[in-house]
Amino acid sequence: ILSKRIVVLPGDGIGPEVCSEAVRVLRAVSSRFGHEFEFDYQLMGACAIDATGSPLPDATLEACRRADAVLLGAIGDPKYDNDPTAKVRPEQGLLGLRKALGLYANIRPITAYDQLLEHSPLKAERIQGTDILIFRELTGGIYFGEKGRSEDRTWAYDHCTYSRDEILRIAHRAFKAAETRRHQLTLVDKANVLETSRLWRETVQSIAPEYPSVALDYLFVDNAAMQIILNPKQFDVILTENMFGDIISDEASVIAGSLGLLPSASVGDGAALFEPIHGSYPQAKGKGIANPIATILSAALLLDHFNLQEEADCVRDAVQHALDQGVVTPELNPSTLYTTEQVGNFIAYSV
Amino acid sequence: ILSKRIVVLPGDGIGPEVCSEAVRVLRAVSSRFGHEFEFDYQLMGACAIDATGSPLPDATLEACRRADAVLLGAIGDPKYDNDPTAKVRPEQGLLGLRKALGLYANIRPITAYDQLLEHSPLKAERIQGTDILIFRELTGGIYFGEKGRSEDRTWAYDHCTYSRDEILRIAHRAFKAAETRRHQLTLVDKANVLETSRLWRETVQSIAPEYPSVALDYLFVDNAAMQIILNPKQFDVILTENMFGDIISDEASVIAGSLGLLPSASVGDGAALFEPIHGSYPQAKGKGIANPIATILSAALLLDHFNLQEEADCVRDAVQHALDQGVVTPELNPSTLYTTEQVGNFIAYSV
Ligand SMILES: CC(C)[C@H](C(=O)O)[C@@H](O)C(=O)O
Ligand SMILES: CC(C)[C@H](C(=O)O)[C@@H](O)C(=O)O
Repeated sequence: ILSKRIVVLPGDGIGPEVCSEAVRVLRAVSSRFGHEFEFDYQLMGACAIDATGSPLPDATLEACRRADAVLLGAIGDPKYDNDPTAKVRPEQGLLGLRKALGLYANIRPITAYDQLLEHSPLKAERIQGTDILIFRELTGGIYFGEKGRSEDRTWAYDHCTYSRDEILRIAHRAFKAAETRRHQLTLVDKANVLETSRLWRETVQSIAPEYPSVALDYLFVDNAAMQIILNPKQFDVILTENMFGDIISDEASVIAGSLGLLPSASVGDGAALFEPIHGSYPQAKGKGIANPIATILSAALLLDHFNLQEEADCVRDAVQHALDQGVVTPELNPSTLYTTEQVGNFIAYSV
Repeated sequence: ILSKRIVVLPGDGIGPEVCSEAVRVLRAVSSRFGHEFEFDYQLMGACAIDATGSPLPDATLEACRRADAVLLGAIGDPKYDNDPTAKVRPEQGLLGLRKALGLYANIRPITAYDQLLEHSPLKAERIQGTDILIFRELTGGIYFGEKGRSEDRTWAYDHCTYSRDEILRIAHRAFKAAETRRHQLTLVDKANVLETSRLWRETVQSIAPEYPSVALDYLFVDNAAMQIILNPKQFDVILTENMFGDIISDEASVIAGSLGLLPSASVGDGAALFEPIHGSYPQAKGKGIANPIATILSAALLLDHFNLQEEADCVRDAVQHALDQGVVTPELNPSTLYTTEQVGNFIAYSV
C-alpha cells in the first residue's frame, strides 16, 4: 500500500472547481487501487494575497517542499493585470514556487482527440493524429533575470540569461523522451538574433551524439509559430526556452480544440507540480461550466510521476469514456447541460 | 511628373526573383502613370558577405539613406544558421539597416483572401473577413540590447530594454491607424512577468485619452497566440514589441493561406523599407516557383508611401485579378504551371 502526500493549490477563479474534480478522481483511484493519498490544501495566488498579503505564503512553500507532488488549479486575477504599478501579483506566487522547487522542465503533451476534431479552428485533416510533447524550460531566461526601471521610471529592462547547465538538464530530458517516442527533437530558438539562443543551439548540438537514434533539427521561433499551425504532425518532441515555450505551447493548444483538455507537468530534481494549462478564467468562476478534464489529466500525469502506470491509464481511459459518451461541459458541446461536477463525477465513477 | 529613387536589395535565395517581378510591376506603373522611378540595386545579406565580407556594406547603407524608399527581397542563408560561432551573419545586415534608417514601426496587414480560404489550415468560417493590421516595434527590445557571453562562454545574456519614447512614437501611429479603421487597438505584452511590458502598458494607457474613439484592450502574448488562431476576426489593430511582433505576425500569416501573399512596410521618421514577410527560402531558389505576390504587394505599400493612392490600388487590383484568374504559382495551385516570371508579367500587364 502506497502512501503519498499531495499538496493541492486550488488558486483563483475556476481553480477551486476544477481541483475538486481532480481530487475526486484521485480519491476514486486510491480507493480502487488501495493507495493512501493525503490531500493538504494550501493558498497561492490572488487568494493568498487577499488572505495573507503574500502570493506564496511560507506555509504553502513549506508544505510543497514536504509533499510528494503538488496539484495546482489556476492563479490570476484581472484586478492586478491592468495596474502596472501593483507591487504584489498572483503570478509571483507561481513563479516563486517554480523557482523554489527547482521545477525546471514544463512538459505539455498536445494531442488531437478524434472526438473533438470539429472543435478545433484547424481543418481536421491537418491535425488528425497530432501528438506533440513540448519541453519548456521553466526556471530561467527572461522570466527570472534582473528587471527594473531607470530612476526616473522612463525606461525599463528585463535581462535574459541562460547557462550551459540550465540547458543541459532539460535537453537531456527532452532527448530521452524522444528516444521513447518517434525519435525526433526540434529545438525552437532565435539563434539568428539572440546570443542565449546560440548557446542553446550549441549546447543541444553538443550532446546530440549521445542520442544517436534521435534526429535533431532547429526552427526559428517565428517559423515554428507558423509550422505548428500549418503542419503540426511534423513534430514529435519540441524543446525550447521559457518565454518561447510560454507562447508556443499556448498556441499549440488550439490543435486540441479546447484549452480545457490540456494538462502539464513541471518537474525538476525533487518535487513535481501538475496543473492544467488554462488560466483562472474568472468570468466562469462559480458557474459550474469550467471543464475539469485538463486538471483531471494533470492528475493522471501525477500518477505517472508516482510510477502508477495502470492507475494513470485508468484515469485517461475514464476521460476518453466521458468524451465518447459526450459527458462534457458546454464549451465542448453547447447542447449538453453537464456541469463541472457532473463531468468529474462521471469520470470518477468510470475509474 | 514624379521622380523617385528606389534602392532595390534583392538579397538571398528567392529574393532576386521576387524583386525582379516587383520592379517589373513598378516599371509598368511608372510608364502607365508617367512617373520616373530610378532603381538602384545594392547588396545586402549573405550575398553581400560573399562579395564584400560585410552583410551591410557602406555603399548600400549610403544608397538607402539617399533613397526615397527601399525595396527588399529576402535575406538569409542556412550555412550561417547552424554555426553558432559565425562572426558575421546575413541578419545583421537587415537589423543594422533597420536601426540605421530608424525604421521603428513594422506594419503588416493580414487579410484572408476569399479566393484562398481553402488554402488556409484554418476553417473558412473562422477566418473569412479577417482584416488585421499589426504594428511591430522594430528597432528596440531584446533584438538591440546588449548581448554576450561570460568569459568562459558557459553562459549567455540578451538584454531587453524599452524607453517611454520608443513606445510612444509607435503607439501614436497605431492609435492613428485604428482611428481610420474599426477603432480598436489591442496591446500584446507579458505585463504579468516583464517590467518592459508593464512600461508598455502604462505608456499606451497614458495616451489612450488622446484617442477617445479608439477602444484599447490588452492581451498577454501567450493568450494572443491562441486568440489569433481561435478567433482572428476579433482583432483590428494589434500593437506589440519587437520579439512578440516577430512571432505573432508570422503566426498570423497562416490566416492568409500562404506566406507568399503578405507584404510589410517598415517606417520611421525618414526613409521607409518594403519587403515580403517570407524568408529567402533557399530550397526554391532559381526554380521559378517563388510566389512574387508578397513582394508586389510590398511595392503597392511603397506606392502608398509616395502618396500614389490610385497607382497603389491599381497594383492591388491587378493582384486580385491574377488570383481571380488563377494565375498563381504552384504553392497556391499545384495544378497550374505558372512561373514566378509569368505571374509577375500577368500582374504587370494588368496594371
Ligand atoms: C501565469 C503566467 C506567469 C504563466 C507563465 O507565463 O509562465 C502562465 O502563462 C503559464 O504558462 O503557466
Ligand atoms: C531575419 C530576422 C532577423 C527577422 C526578424 O526576426 O526580425 C525576420 O524574421 C523578420 O521578421 O523580418
